[in-house]
Amino acid sequence: MTLLRLARATGTVVPALLRGGGVRLASSKASGSDAALEIVARSKSFGGYVTRYRHYAETLKCDMGFAVYTPPVCETDPAAKCPTMYWLSGLTCDDTNFITKAGAQKYLAENNLMVVCPDTSPRGCNLPGEDDAYDFGTGAGFYISATTEHYKDHYHMYEYITQELPSFVEQHLPALPAARSILGHSMGGLGALNLYLKNPTQYKTVSAFSPICNPINCAWGQKAFRGYLGDDEATWQAWDPCMLLSQTDLDALPEILISQGLADEFLESQLRPSSLPKHKNIRLEMHEGYDHSYYFIASFIEQHIKHHAAALTR
Amino acid sequence: MTLLRLARATGTVVPALLRGGGVRLASSKASGSDAALEIVARSKSFGGYVTRYRHYAETLKCDMGFAVYTPPVCETDPAAKCPTMYWLSGLTCDDTNFITKAGAQKYLAENNLMVVCPDTSPRGCNLPGEDDAYDFGTGAGFYISATTEHYKDHYHMYEYITQELPSFVEQHLPALPAARSILGHSMGGLGALNLYLKNPTQYKTVSAFSPICNPINCAWGQKAFRGYLGDDEATWQAWDPCMLLSQTDLDALPEILISQGLADEFLESQLRPSSLPKHKNIRLEMHEGYDHSYYFIASFIEQHIKHHAAALTR
Repeated sequence: MTLLRLARATGTVVPALLRGGGVRLASSKASGSDAALEIVARSKSFGGYVTRYRHYAETLKCDMGFAVYTPPVCETDPAAKCPTMYWLSGLTCDDTNFITKAGAQKYLAENNLMVVCPDTSPRGCNLPGEDDAYDFGTGAGFYISATTEHYKDHYHMYEYITQELPSFVEQHLPALPAARSILGHSMGGLGALNLYLKNPTQYKTVSAFSPICNPINCAWGQKAFRGYLGDDEATWQAWDPCMLLSQTDLDALPEILISQGLADEFLESQLRPSSLPKHKNIRLEMHEGYDHSYYFIASFIEQHIKHHAAALTR
Repeated sequence: MTLLRLARATGTVVPALLRGGGVRLASSKASGSDAALEIVARSKSFGGYVTRYRHYAETLKCDMGFAVYTPPVCETDPAAKCPTMYWLSGLTCDDTNFITKAGAQKYLAENNLMVVCPDTSPRGCNLPGEDDAYDFGTGAGFYISATTEHYKDHYHMYEYITQELPSFVEQHLPALPAARSILGHSMGGLGALNLYLKNPTQYKTVSAFSPICNPINCAWGQKAFRGYLGDDEATWQAWDPCMLLSQTDLDALPEILISQGLADEFLESQLRPSSLPKHKNIRLEMHEGYDHSYYFIASFIEQHIKHHAAALTR
């Protein structure tokens, strides 16, 4: 990759538009009570709008971006408020991957649903080791509450996603208060399962694509938990979906939808869906030939959105 | 952007998979008669497959990548051959933008169509000025036949797209010979219109999103044509859709579909759809609120694929 192409990838305004990143609004701080919410980019999509916002996150002590889709009903009825799906992305992703690649907007528009896509970690905190690897630190927050010396002041993605972000979204955007669900992919599938199981009344439902099911027993999880929680492995169990499910009354659980590709490169080494308890309320669908990519997510996102719509509009 | 993030953007195998780029196959040269065709990446998508190929392009004298979607019928029937849409991307894009962002695969699968997405210019030829700007040289081939001293040995995207690539695709992939159509976005919309109007019997139909309609009268076109064709402006007219349409019997023309967003940042300065001739066979649809991004393309790709399917399966 040439230096020029790298410069392009960092995004001056015109090339970003040409590549399809939407309209970048350099300085669109909202006024009055919305002063804390900056619009970074906004594009019409399936009759609604994709908007990238930026705000200061108190829980993370840094600026954070997040992407939102608001369906057409928010344009036609200024008083409309919609149930909201929270999408958690995987390792190396940011707030843009889902909204550009998953093909969800058509189905969100049809079902009058919003989606909120947060970033995957604090950014730019300059912590020791934060930028040394793709699977720890920047882009790899694991949606937990860090307790280790270097990370405990910033890496609180758990509090950010479960508390600060929905509160902020419901204050500033046309989101129906407390009509929330959660889903995600890979590290974000792990996050979605953990956050739901730890807060079952806060979310109407959960689903996951290719989640890291049993992180205490895979390299990605062990590395992250050692870095964010320390060497006491007993503390790791509070962030492991299989451990949380073992403490849950599965008969009382609403159905959890999990989609997994059988050609996923990380299936046995990192994701381990075979570690999930076998139960009628854990609907694990294994799909022949699909890998770990957004091509898999796009192929089954309609099914997931219908699963969420049913729970959110019940 | 940190150096690490730049390193990530250049793509080692694991982070690329995590971000959703599909399975990268480092060395999958096909054997025998397919030896010239290397598979770079392959992912199942809506029952078919997205595959990125790499081959040596004789017309361009460099290696070129292109992306293909083959619908499910190619998996279920090894003898199946499908009509093929050629998608031409815009400035700064490569072979991946359409296949990752447009959400076309669902409709290609439903209509038993292939799509072939070439890159937007020769790559890595190290020509003077090739990497100095986003709108000329690398990523900006304009789908023409260059005649200027520095560019005439490599910048022959016109011959590559109209001759070498379809011949190669129909030899190596399940493409129905000569059942081709063409479409594109922005610079690629210009390319699609030009290539169709210069070869009306080679393509069953054409459509365009936000095309550069009258390049001899906008800055992007003038810069490109001066660089690739030289200072004699009379030679530029052969690559201008409005000029070609003025020499075409519009009554005998099959319907051309053109979609344009009214909130497109480049509408008046570069694209100039108002310069197109007014005629019933030029169906110019102006969409309120949509910009130049792939969010616009994704919102109307179903309509375009139906337009192509009707012509390709007639």
